[in-house]
Amino acid sequence: MTDLPKSIEIVEEGPREGFQIEKGPISTADKVALIDALSLCGFRAIQAASFVSLKHVPGWADAEAVVAGFTAKPGIAYSALWFNAAGMQRARVFENKLTLEGAISLTASEAFTRKNLNRDRPGQIAAMREHVAAHKAAGVPVTRLTVMAAFGCNYQGDVPPSAVVEAVADGFTIANEAGLAFEKVSIADSMGWATPQRISRVIGALRETWPELPISLHLHDTRGLGIASAYEGLRLGVRYFDAAVAGLGGCPFAGHSGAPGNIATEELVLMCEEMGIATGIDLDALMEAGRLAERIVGRQLPSAALRSGTIDTFRKRAA
Amino acid sequence: MTDLPKSIEIVEEGPREGFQIEKGPISTADKVALIDALSLCGFRAIQAASFVSLKHVPGWADAEAVVAGFTAKPGIAYSALWFNAAGMQRARVFENKLTLEGAISLTASEAFTRKNLNRDRPGQIAAMREHVAAHKAAGVPVTRLTVMAAFGCNYQGDVPPSAVVEAVADGFTIANEAGLAFEKVSIADSMGWATPQRISRVIGALRETWPELPISLHLHDTRGLGIASAYEGLRLGVRYFDAAVAGLGGCPFAGHSGAPGNIATEELVLMCEEMGIATGIDLDALMEAGRLAERIVGRQLPSAALRSGTIDTFRKRAA
Repeated sequence: MTDLPKSIEIVEEGPREGFQIEKGPISTADKVALIDALSLCGFRAIQAASFVSLKHVPGWADAEAVVAGFTAKPGIAYSALWFNAAGMQRARVFENKLTLEGAISLTASEAFTRKNLNRDRPGQIAAMREHVAAHKAAGVPVTRLTVMAAFGCNYQGDVPPSAVVEAVADGFTIANEAGLAFEKVSIADSMGWATPQRISRVIGALRETWPELPISLHLHDTRGLGIASAYEGLRLGVRYFDAAVAGLGGCPFAGHSGAPGNIATEELVLMCEEMGIATGIDLDALMEAGRLAERIVGRQLPSAALRSGTIDTFRKRAA
Repeated sequence: MTDLPKSIEIVEEGPREGFQIEKGPISTADKVALIDALSLCGFRAIQAASFVSLKHVPGWADAEAVVAGFTAKPGIAYSALWFNAAGMQRARVFENKLTLEGAISLTASEAFTRKNLNRDRPGQIAAMREHVAAHKAAGVPVTRLTVMAAFGCNYQGDVPPSAVVEAVADGFTIANEAGLAFEKVSIADSMGWATPQRISRVIGALRETWPELPISLHLHDTRGLGIASAYEGLRLGVRYFDAAVAGLGGCPFAGHSGAPGNIATEELVLMCEEMGIATGIDLDALMEAGRLAERIVGRQLPSAALRSGTIDTFRKRAA
């Protein structure tokens, strides 16, 4: 296990992921309260809002009010998600509060792109070229490539690692044309198909082509294999992870209902800290935020660690 | 990942683990129904009952009625748990229906033994010598060594791998004196302290002394790290696992409440089958049994896989 990193960086995506899929309605004040609670946990990056279609994602209709409402803590990059120029323009209003960074979104499953965006692979590449041009025109950097459905797809079935390599190659083509460099390449298990073996195969295939690729893993715990898959990522030296407090979230377009969302940040932090991998996160404060998230959504969220608590409590009591 | 086994053997412990800790009361008929449903899943071993203290484990006061009630399917070894000669005698009544096999139980945490059994390490060894003698006198084989609290302890704190090695050595001492050979050495994470790293260290320490030790892992998903820990076991070639349908269970003596129980059999099976490791289990039938378990206990159980379903359904639909 010599490749285990000494430290990792987690982007907390609970607010963005959670409020896009929870039935709600969840008040703006509650959304703000969760972001403020997460600001006390030691994260250096929190995805705080989603400037997306009000029709498709009504849970984020109040994105402006949420961003205006939370208290930005120095040292934390608060990001937002958008998929088109209109969303970017809404986010730009908050350029003094948000860290504005765009992303190129591709998928390793053409069936997924067709189903959700009504585009084929060349169509999606063309759309991303326009997307990048809009960012350049607005002076908003594009720092990330995201490849969705990288481990399998509810619409297409198995996704070969070569399809992920092709999607990343497409992303680099678009980036090179525009003179961009990615800070991170996010490999996303949008529909919970990842197993440790698929993680290993996809990362292996990517590194064969790009040995130094700054891989970030975005994993869902749809089938209970999310933390095992994250562990395989750690074992292979991955240092960037997305996670959601209490296991909030889930992909609204994945054709699932009732299944758990993102990997729970507490579980990822607990596993890392117990294995000597620094996360910079105060687990007690995070558990506090997780309990707040459960009060806000009014139900038990999937995180087991949230219910059992940290190991440190027992360790200290025993000592 | 060359050490991944080609197949594994799972002992389904949902009935025994679950009904010992659920608040209940759960009717005998429901217990029987769950065992009968599990008999349709392809397991070769199901732990069907617990002949333990009626005072401490009232959920199993009806062990006799449950064992009398279920329909034994040929090819399945139905086992029962007991901790003393009285329990063994209760089980012996069903020697034609149950596979009667005893176990030596030791722990890697003396604090745990003191707390739960009011014995120190020599006291527990002495008790196990008597336990073995009672089995010999009754003609009941002792085939298993169980080491509890092998990865950490809520009462003692961290448990060094050397303490697990010492407990296994104690077990071999008792076995050698009595002329026994263990079929399995079960390493149990009674209180949810296991991480993949602790799994690796404990298995490493054991194999340094006994390279061919037939290790079985009994993992709890207390903090959401159970499946990741099971994966590390698989990676190190472990072929024997206990698991509980829907994630039933939990240790009644662990000083936790509300935390998840054993690793969910569906999640273990799903991970293995998706990685090409044969389990012999019909996942659809198992999900059916898991849904029955949830109806019986009247609440949602921890298994994420139970809610999301198999991947195969999507794969077939997509194909």
